[in-house]
Amino acid sequence: MKVVIIGGVAGGASAAARLRRLDEQAEILLFERGEYISFANCGLPYYIGGTIQKRNKLLLQTPESMKERFNVEVRVQCEVTAIDRARKVVTVLDLTSGKTYEERYDKLVLSPGAAPMRPDFPGSMLPNVFTLRNMADCDAIKGYLTESKPARALVVGGGFIGVEMVENLVHAGVDVTAIELADQVLAPLDYEMACMVHQNMRAHGVDLRLSTGLEAIEQEGAGLTCTLSGRVKVFADMVLLAIGVRADHALAQQAGLELDIKGSIRVDEHMATSDPDIYAVGDAVAVSDFVSGEKAVLPLAGPANRQGRMVADLINGREASYEGTQGTMICKVFDLSVGATGNNEKQLRASGRAYDKVYVHPSSHAGYYPGAETLSLKLLFDPASGVILGAQAVGKEGVDKRIDVIATAMRGRMTVQDLEKLELCYAPPFSSAKDPVNMAGFTACNVMKGDLRQIFIEDLKDLDPEKDLLVDIRTQGEYDAGTIGNAVLIPLDSIRDRLAEFPKDKRVVIFCRAGLRGYIGYRILVQNGITNVYNLSGGYLTWEPVYGAKNKSCGGGKTTRIPKEKA
Amino acid sequence: MKVVIIGGVAGGASAAARLRRLDEQAEILLFERGEYISFANCGLPYYIGGTIQKRNKLLLQTPESMKERFNVEVRVQCEVTAIDRARKVVTVLDLTSGKTYEERYDKLVLSPGAAPMRPDFPGSMLPNVFTLRNMADCDAIKGYLTESKPARALVVGGGFIGVEMVENLVHAGVDVTAIELADQVLAPLDYEMACMVHQNMRAHGVDLRLSTGLEAIEQEGAGLTCTLSGRVKVFADMVLLAIGVRADHALAQQAGLELDIKGSIRVDEHMATSDPDIYAVGDAVAVSDFVSGEKAVLPLAGPANRQGRMVADLINGREASYEGTQGTMICKVFDLSVGATGNNEKQLRASGRAYDKVYVHPSSHAGYYPGAETLSLKLLFDPASGVILGAQAVGKEGVDKRIDVIATAMRGRMTVQDLEKLELCYAPPFSSAKDPVNMAGFTACNVMKGDLRQIFIEDLKDLDPEKDLLVDIRTQGEYDAGTIGNAVLIPLDSIRDRLAEFPKDKRVVIFCRAGLRGYIGYRILVQNGITNVYNLSGGYLTWEPVYGAKNKSCGGGKTTRIPKEKA
Repeated sequence: MKVVIIGGVAGGASAAARLRRLDEQAEILLFERGEYISFANCGLPYYIGGTIQKRNKLLLQTPESMKERFNVEVRVQCEVTAIDRARKVVTVLDLTSGKTYEERYDKLVLSPGAAPMRPDFPGSMLPNVFTLRNMADCDAIKGYLTESKPARALVVGGGFIGVEMVENLVHAGVDVTAIELADQVLAPLDYEMACMVHQNMRAHGVDLRLSTGLEAIEQEGAGLTCTLSGRVKVFADMVLLAIGVRADHALAQQAGLELDIKGSIRVDEHMATSDPDIYAVGDAVAVSDFVSGEKAVLPLAGPANRQGRMVADLINGREASYEGTQGTMICKVFDLSVGATGNNEKQLRASGRAYDKVYVHPSSHAGYYPGAETLSLKLLFDPASGVILGAQAVGKEGVDKRIDVIATAMRGRMTVQDLEKLELCYAPPFSSAKDPVNMAGFTACNVMKGDLRQIFIEDLKDLDPEKDLLVDIRTQGEYDAGTIGNAVLIPLDSIRDRLAEFPKDKRVVIFCRAGLRGYIGYRILVQNGITNVYNLSGGYLTWEPVYGAKNKSCGGGKTTRIPKEKA
Repeated sequence: MKVVIIGGVAGGASAAARLRRLDEQAEILLFERGEYISFANCGLPYYIGGTIQKRNKLLLQTPESMKERFNVEVRVQCEVTAIDRARKVVTVLDLTSGKTYEERYDKLVLSPGAAPMRPDFPGSMLPNVFTLRNMADCDAIKGYLTESKPARALVVGGGFIGVEMVENLVHAGVDVTAIELADQVLAPLDYEMACMVHQNMRAHGVDLRLSTGLEAIEQEGAGLTCTLSGRVKVFADMVLLAIGVRADHALAQQAGLELDIKGSIRVDEHMATSDPDIYAVGDAVAVSDFVSGEKAVLPLAGPANRQGRMVADLINGREASYEGTQGTMICKVFDLSVGATGNNEKQLRASGRAYDKVYVHPSSHAGYYPGAETLSLKLLFDPASGVILGAQAVGKEGVDKRIDVIATAMRGRMTVQDLEKLELCYAPPFSSAKDPVNMAGFTACNVMKGDLRQIFIEDLKDLDPEKDLLVDIRTQGEYDAGTIGNAVLIPLDSIRDRLAEFPKDKRVVIFCRAGLRGYIGYRILVQNGITNVYNLSGGYLTWEPVYGAKNKSCGGGKTTRIPKEKA
């Protein structure tokens, strides 16, 4: 058995190592067109920013170590330029010698990854206009930062790499302007959750401009004048293009393999391409979305590794099938962590899936123990069954833990009713007796049982003073520090004494800081005959990052972007 | 509907609040014999140690706030002394006035908690011999620390409270001797995992003595001379007795309600006692163990809160049933976190359940990103189905997250095969592309599929040089720094060249640092004809805390305590 693997990072390296563990006799040959295999591509921004200090920490395996440990022959700087499927050979171009040769295969594994998009606009190829994918890119940026000590950078694109590079450039002492064509960064989040990230980036001195594209770059002296949407010009010493990646399908296409959405390589549930002797894994393939079942391209390291491992099993005649990608993600943005799993509201709407949602903002651990931070958690679920459809979280502590718990529950096809019952670690430094995930479960179950009716921040614009009364049920002090619109104040603990102030001929919309007092207030009101009541889900803490006084610029002022509540 | 609740901390307070949310009209009356309700009992050690600085942070609700917000009448310093079930009345002793009166109930909720055990040995009631359960105890210890500035303390008992108090007394500048009658602290852990905690406590200057009991305390001047097992005497200014708690069943017993194991109150799956109008919740009741289905007494805050909430649902005619307690726990011990969920090996053996186990020691996050720490994880599973039976983890970072993920998987009755597939948050500051939970899943699946045969540290004592060869497959440098017994060194990367050195007529036992290289070595050997091979699960990192040179005193030298591998 001779297995040829094309691409030596996450998926390819995982496949190679497991192939050897399963079959000591197989001939395993790995081609990598770059200079390095198995480098820590997720770590590159942190090396550039200086958090990771030693470059060699990024190099997890070398061709020598792969040979020694796994008896895998690795040929770097060797590009496979063609696949002859009939003859089962690949054509290899040795980039150092310029020579071309062929290698036979029994099974072929494609792990070509995805390449940064670099659209063809004026100036896109100027010096000091960078992209970041591999060690060569990393070295170029790091070298430039070290030698030229740039004062200003423009980062184009608010995805993972863009946002991580913004933080790391700031960490390296560079003033950063960040632009994003959409009205939010980090597409896995919904808009209102992303607004918390926008606030945080701006608080860290980032000149963040949303709904803003890059149209041209011109050399001006040693610097670059960048023309943004609306002919706004900003000056920068360097530009990082991080506007997304595109599946690297060139070789697959040349070989006549079927492609899939967004230029990805089509694979079945066994990661086999349209040629059963050729597998493909990682960022280049389309997978099925775990929630919707629809095709998706989700370039994530965890799935790439698992797919590589799985292909090794399949090549060795074992049974395995890929059950879809949830899109679980986490991203550090300065002192915030931002995580998500499953589908977001945008995706659920697009796929026509019925859903409901709750927002909670509990403490990351017991509030009386030092260091507790507000954790903002959005949970999406099926309104009939309670099956969990997705979650998003933003906060300074414990975001990864809560998203991991929910991601695990989703894999087990668990429901919000199950989240209520989860028995999670509790001691004051770590959580509360009712963990934030339990709280989200409680709230969702309250909604499902009809114990709580919710309204959402995007609905508030439709309030009509003739028909609706907006009531702030927080304290006088909280109210004085800022409320929503022209809400009247009736603190929660006075509601039972002031029932007469709630009209029975209007809809009453109440809100508190995070939603919990609102729920209590709701229960008091509906059981005292004020039945046309709605509680603002997530309260002021959900509203403020989107619409608050300090956030007028958030979303380019497009506060109407959030769609109306579903029927 | 008049509901009387006895006990105003976790379970009682949760029941009261939810009762009101579900029924605005109910009469809810809560009796608490202490001065405070709803105080942060899990926070008391941290207030004593000074981490929580303000005492009022511990008081989460007051009788006034419960009245204002939930219209619950709270009577503190009122002890219910008797229940007349026939008449449905309770007898109340007002501890301030000394007067006794009766209150009628429709439904009664018992949440009496559990009291610290204070065995009747000589000196147990001397001044400066403390227990810690409530605010009064907390104030006594804090007052004593502040006024008397003790130099030395003896902490008796290595459960949660004992271990947390050890840390907090050290934090407050006190020299601590800690004794525990068993050969390990923190009973939810198995012995070999607890040894990591013993190492850490000793590294922080604690004089930890295992297999050691307290026999007597004598006043000697201003101090206390404590006689330990074997007539060893230690001097201390104060003694904290933290030898465990016992369900407070006095009232239930007086009322003729059925009791259960360990003096707990018997309840059914609806938390109803043998009287259908009387419920009991929290630390005083026996629950069913989620894994074994056997009765268990597990005093934990999370379950207490959930039970209180559930009882409110049931009283309001809603359906609910308690599905058992997993015993998920976490404990901070200096810079370590120690967590567990489900059954440990001791419990599984005791209940005769078939199980297998794996140990892994991966990094808490990507090793190339600063701050990564070794996370030691033990996973117990059903050897036939792969159903997860329990897990334990010890480490400086990310312990709570991994135990929460596994606890969630267990609630979903998931398997180790599911752990392989979990899609968890990955970015370098948070985890690795293969999370420690995935790694444990991979390892367990390798064992289940027969891709790896394991041996455990407790089996090494049975090695016979005539029949077995112990091989250290780490590097020369690691070997030189300390190896196991008289192991020979054959580094992993040289195995293929040195196959002739592995005997075919002996059992070959290989080990590495954490088990992963051992797995790779195992695969190389068995596929090259050396088939009688076993890999030491968890490698040197599992062995060293138990048997390493620095740990001779660990377990009181009783290294033979760990039982032999099951058949």
